[in-house]
Amino acid sequence: MITSLSNGKIKHLITLRDKGRARNKEGLFLAEGLKMFEEAPVGQLKEIYVSEVLWQELEKATDENRTWKKLNECRKQGTFVEQLSEEVFKKVSDTQTPQGILFVMEQLSYNLEILVKHALERQAEGGRMPLFLLLEDVQDPGNLGTMIRTGEGAGVDGVIMSRGTVDIYNPKTIRSTMGSLYRVPFLYVENLGAAITILQQSGIRVYAAHLEGKQYFDELSYEGGSAFLIGNEGNGLRRETADMADTYLKIPMEGKLESLNAAVAAALLLYQAARAGRRSMIR
Amino acid sequence: MITSLSNGKIKHLITLRDKGRARNKEGLFLAEGLKMFEEAPVGQLKEIYVSEVLWQELEKATDENRTWKKLNECRKQGTFVEQLSEEVFKKVSDTQTPQGILFVMEQLSYNLEILVKHALERQAEGGRMPLFLLLEDVQDPGNLGTMIRTGEGAGVDGVIMSRGTVDIYNPKTIRSTMGSLYRVPFLYVENLGAAITILQQSGIRVYAAHLEGKQYFDELSYEGGSAFLIGNEGNGLRRETADMADTYLKIPMEGKLESLNAAVAAALLLYQAARAGRRSMIR
Repeated sequence: MITSLSNGKIKHLITLRDKGRARNKEGLFLAEGLKMFEEAPVGQLKEIYVSEVLWQELEKATDENRTWKKLNECRKQGTFVEQLSEEVFKKVSDTQTPQGILFVMEQLSYNLEILVKHALERQAEGGRMPLFLLLEDVQDPGNLGTMIRTGEGAGVDGVIMSRGTVDIYNPKTIRSTMGSLYRVPFLYVENLGAAITILQQSGIRVYAAHLEGKQYFDELSYEGGSAFLIGNEGNGLRRETADMADTYLKIPMEGKLESLNAAVAAALLLYQAARAGRRSMIR
Repeated sequence: MITSLSNGKIKHLITLRDKGRARNKEGLFLAEGLKMFEEAPVGQLKEIYVSEVLWQELEKATDENRTWKKLNECRKQGTFVEQLSEEVFKKVSDTQTPQGILFVMEQLSYNLEILVKHALERQAEGGRMPLFLLLEDVQDPGNLGTMIRTGEGAGVDGVIMSRGTVDIYNPKTIRSTMGSLYRVPFLYVENLGAAITILQQSGIRVYAAHLEGKQYFDELSYEGGSAFLIGNEGNGLRRETADMADTYLKIPMEGKLESLNAAVAAALLLYQAARAGRRSMIR
């Protein structure tokens, strides 16, 4: 059991929690919580840390306990597992009421061309239409996590983010994804315009919610695959990015509201296109 | 200019920021930020505090500066206005990068029967259909604020909250409303069931997104007015509350997702009903 904050492993965990650069350099990230642990792909788990109290509870639990089962599975595969004293655990955890388990994982890696290829293949086989989300400089970690989570619900094929978007491995973002982080493909790109072009050349239409939009988002058919551009919370999309969209959409707003929350706008658009996709399959 | 944290006014501001009970007892709340100030109803502003740096900037600004205009308007009406030193301002502010203005306002007060009456009258005159949001024990301040904001966009007639719902005057909630707090009617009720009954007796249908729902939320007509029940983020709706709904709805979800974020679910439902309302007006 580790009881000292000056332990090298602990220092490393805190670095992974707080420093995006270190995370990316090492290709690792830190996650925590029972649900996040239970849903984590075993092959990507590198180190697991359990608080003293949770450990005692798990030892008393039946073999049916999902956390205990997973923990034993990981130990069999040789994953590093260690106990932390309550005090040390609380210092490493990013939450106010930690659940007693945190772990180091390998970062996930996806390729845009392959994601597009898979989406087109599924469509060709009579499945859902391609659906992508394009994020430019989204800053709020909770918004990003919520968009990943909503993306899973809507059946998104990938979330493509500009380099200026907040780090998806930020602890608050990870938490907000509620496990979708493991299942929704995502990638950061140097050049969002180039990604837009790849989608367009594959026959996927790119839409931007925009004040100059004339068509209501819920009055289009979204046939043949869709990608939605969502901009920064304060400033919206850059002019040159918005210019690349095939269609500007309008989300109707009553009252004096200037805009919706970015994650809410993304949800409305993704679910509208997903519904069109669902209907085309029923036909 | 106030330069001491032990000043009585400053202690009062911090109490209003941190203590829900004190806010409710006094019928006041603390808000901050340029946009929130510019949109605040003048009649409800009680005290205004400006940071030393912002004050200097405002004195140099033209008469066209909206903050300066509003500040002068308030002073003419006799509202208390005071400068705070940068250090004091930072201690009172709830944000990491304060914008230099914070203010005490009277709490807003609405009556459910009157809200319902107005909604029915508007409908009778050929306007939008009644639209309500019912929240049971929603806990996340950001989620609540986002729901108020989305509610304005969808044209909601009122947001009705159980006593166990997070305080709407929580600084993070106020911020997330982006000014909608002033424009969306809301109220807390002791008994959510009684509020549901009032809506139902007015001919408004009450819907709950529910795992047992069989109808997709986007395949109903939402005629004659709608109210949507949203439950606690972790536990959903209480059984007895869900039982009161007229209809259970299903929000389709791909992947292994168990639920959507509460504010996202509310947005999908509100916008779906608002769209039905918009269409009925076009006819």
